[in-house]
Parts: sequence; structure tokens; C-alpha cells
Amino acid sequence: MTYCLALKLRQGLVFASDSRTTAGIDYIGTYRKMHIFQPSKERLIVMLTSGNLATTQAVLDNLRRDLELNATPENLGSVSYLFEAARYIGRMLSGVVQQYAGAQQDARATLVVGGQIGGQPPELYLVYPEGNYVAATPETPFLQLGEFKYGKPILSRIASADLSLDDAARLALISFDAAMKSNLSVGPPVELAIYPRDSFQFSQQVSFDADSEFFRALCQRWNELLLSAFSQLPRFTWESSGPDGARGG
Amino acid sequence: MTYCLALKLRQGLVFASDSRTTAGIDYIGTYRKMHIFQPSKERLIVMLTSGNLATTQAVLDNLRRDLELNATPENLGSVSYLFEAARYIGRMLSGVVQQYAGAQQDARATLVVGGQIGGQPPELYLVYPEGNYVAATPETPFLQLGEFKYGKPILSRIASADLSLDDAARLALISFDAAMKSNLSVGPPVELAIYPRDSFQFSQQVSFDADSEFFRALCQRWNELLLSAFSQLPRFTWESSGPDGARGG
Repeated sequence: MTYCLALKLRQGLVFASDSRTTAGIDYIGTYRKMHIFQPSKERLIVMLTSGNLATTQAVLDNLRRDLELNATPENLGSVSYLFEAARYIGRMLSGVVQQYAGAQQDARATLVVGGQIGGQPPELYLVYPEGNYVAATPETPFLQLGEFKYGKPILSRIASADLSLDDAARLALISFDAAMKSNLSVGPPVELAIYPRDSFQFSQQVSFDADSEFFRALCQRWNELLLSAFSQLPRFTWESSGPDGARGG
Repeated sequence: MTYCLALKLRQGLVFASDSRTTAGIDYIGTYRKMHIFQPSKERLIVMLTSGNLATTQAVLDNLRRDLELNATPENLGSVSYLFEAARYIGRMLSGVVQQYAGAQQDARATLVVGGQIGGQPPELYLVYPEGNYVAATPETPFLQLGEFKYGKPILSRIASADLSLDDAARLALISFDAAMKSNLSVGPPVELAIYPRDSFQFSQQVSFDADSEFFRALCQRWNELLLSAFSQLPRFTWESSGPDGARGG
């Protein structure tokens, strides 16, 4: 499995992805799941991948070839809107999925496509194996791939389009910490990329491996803060008056 | 779906369960998933249920009938160890599952069986639809059923056999809060039962509905504490020195 996360903030976009690829517990590999296309100065497109590795690699090969050959009717260098990129990538994805569907039980993959093109605002899309897509919105500012459940509660509490890019990046890392602590199929290095709106370049692009001092310190501090928060929770009514005291319900 | 949770502490056992039963989003019912058997003064057995409702109700009907008729070779009043109760319930469960397996796509159910019998220590078992079971241990002091992923990270951080019964009950409630905030198929009322070792009765047995003042206050305080904890996390190295400062990796 996989865990990938992207947030759409007023100030820009934040992308994060793990690097573990598994085919059973005794075949564990490390593959980047964050792929960056920058075909021109005013065009930056990020793709996060989950699902069948052969499928996502085939899609990437096609995307790169189309871009290199300036293929028609469209490629990542020629589309005018990011939703057109999502639609084009979705078409390519569903084509690959269908091509291998007969030969393999599950050739499906799901993608996040985000970035900014020219004068358009930054956008973020979840692209399904069927080829269709949904967008992140101010009310739903984050999209997740793969083992998303462990890291979702903290996002539901804190994620908001008004977060600063750095706060959103910090939130992404503690969401990854929850997923990695709970599920062996999500593993380091964790890649993080911060994209400030209208800049057409990442302000930060970092890879945190298992030994990263900052990531370790962040996770350890978060754990301490949670233990401390837990100790400050309200007592049940019966705790102040012994085990036979008033009921808390 | 469902969320049920039980913890095995040095001081006793804590059980919690939601009450939502769904068959699609437009058929939502409320069913208790915590079932209590107390066939004699020194025998208390709790069963938490998840999965196919018809299957768990059939198992409960059989268990109650066997107990009433003092059935041979065994019933919940005659088994000498809690693992025998788990094994007996597991056999009954797998029988019902197999009986309906042909007629229905998924007649499976998974159970938690816990409690204490006579001079034996309290025990907690997860009983699978195949009829076998695993026990909670000091290293793995909690067992979950159903939509377990959302509420697991906080358990992994805090759950320990050394927790007091009241702390374990508080932990159970915030784990339920995470699950209920993230997944509509987990819903109130949340039932909570606290069993102090060797007492053969619950010290507390409470049902928290959506309007419960205490549960609402607890969840709200937990949310505030998490937001405050988040604001205290370490900054990236680049935050102290502007966007072009040193890298955090």
C-alpha cells in the first residue's frame, strides 16, 4: 500500500508521499510516488501515485513521451487548464488499467494531480482508475491516496484552506506519522513539496528518511503533546466521588 | 459498519461499542452491539459484535437458549475457562456463517468475547468468523472490531495494560470520537462498560447518546487540546530564516 496526501491552501499547495511498495510482506521495495513535470516556466504539475506500480509507471512513461514528442491532441505541455491535465491523465490511466485488467487481478491505480498553469489558479484533483476526477475545494482542502484512514482524523480536525503552507506541511507530516505508526505498508522516506501560489517552483522540496533528525523530533514532540493533552481531559463524574458516585452519561 | 473496542488492563476490562447498523446509507438502524451474560455470581461474559446482523443475532439466540436449557456439552454457564467460552462461541459463529454462506454474499461476523470466570484472571478474545480466536495480551492490550483504523493511532500511542480503568475508558471515548468524526457508519449511542477485576460486576455501565453533555464536552476539549498541541510543534529550520533558509531534511 501507500499513503499520499495533498492540500490546497489559499497560499498554494502541499504534497506529501511515502515510498514503500509491497507485494506481500517479503517483497518490499522503495519507489518514489511523487512525480514532477515542469514543461515550461509557467507550468508546474505534480502527480502522486497509488495502486498498481506497473500501471503508474506505464502512465508516467506515456506522459513523458507525449511531452517529449509534443504529442497531439494534447500533452502536459499543451493543456490550457489543470482540469484538462487531470482529464488527459485520467484517460491515459483508464486505458492502461483496461489494457491489463484481463491479465491481472487488480491493475488499478489512483492518482492525485495538482499544480498550476499560467494565469490559472492552483488546482488539485483526485483521478480515479476509471479516468474521472474530483477536485479539492475550500470545504474539502485535502485529498488522500492509499492507507488514508489512520491519518485522516487529525486532518479532519485541523486542515483548512487558511493554514499557512508551513503549517499544512507540518500537519501532513503528523498525518504520515499516524499512518506509519499503524501500518507497515506505509514507509519512509517521506517526500514533501511546498508550492507557493504563482511561484511556479517549490519553495521547499525535502525527503525525510527514517533517520531524519527533524522528522523524528517532530513525531516525538507530537507524541509527548498528545500524552500531555490526554492527561488534561475532563474526568468522569464518578471519578470525583468514588466508584459508586454519580453517572457520567 | 461498526466500531467496537475492548481493553485488557491490569485492573480489569473496558468495553465500548457504537450502535449504528447500516445496509446502505438510506437504511440506518440502531442496534446494541454489547451483550452481557451473567449466568452466576462469579461469572461475567461480555460479547461485542460486528458484521452481519442476522448472524450475530442468531449466535445470541443460540447462546441464550443453550444457557436457559443448561445445554450439553457446554454453555456459557458451564465452561470452566474464558477461552472455552471463546471456542464455544466461535464454533457457534462459524456454524451460522456457513449455514448462510450460500444464500448471502457475506454472512460473516467477528466478535470480541471478554470477561472473567471464577478464580481465573479476566481475559479478552477476538473471535473470527472461521471460529478461531486470538487473545489480548499485556503487549497488545486492546482489540477492535469494524471501522478500526481511524481510532487506532491514538490507541497505539496511549493504550497500555497499566492504564487505570477510568483512563482506559476516557481513551476509548476519544478513539470513538475519531471514528465517528471520520465515518458516518459509526454512530451513537456509544455504550461503555467498566469491569474491575474480581468484582464480577460492572463498576460503570453508561450509554452516551449524541446529546450527552459529558461526551460532547470531552470531545470538544480533546479537539481544543489537539489544536493547541499542533500549535506547539517544532518549526521547520527554514521557518526561522525565511523561505530560502536551511533545509529541514
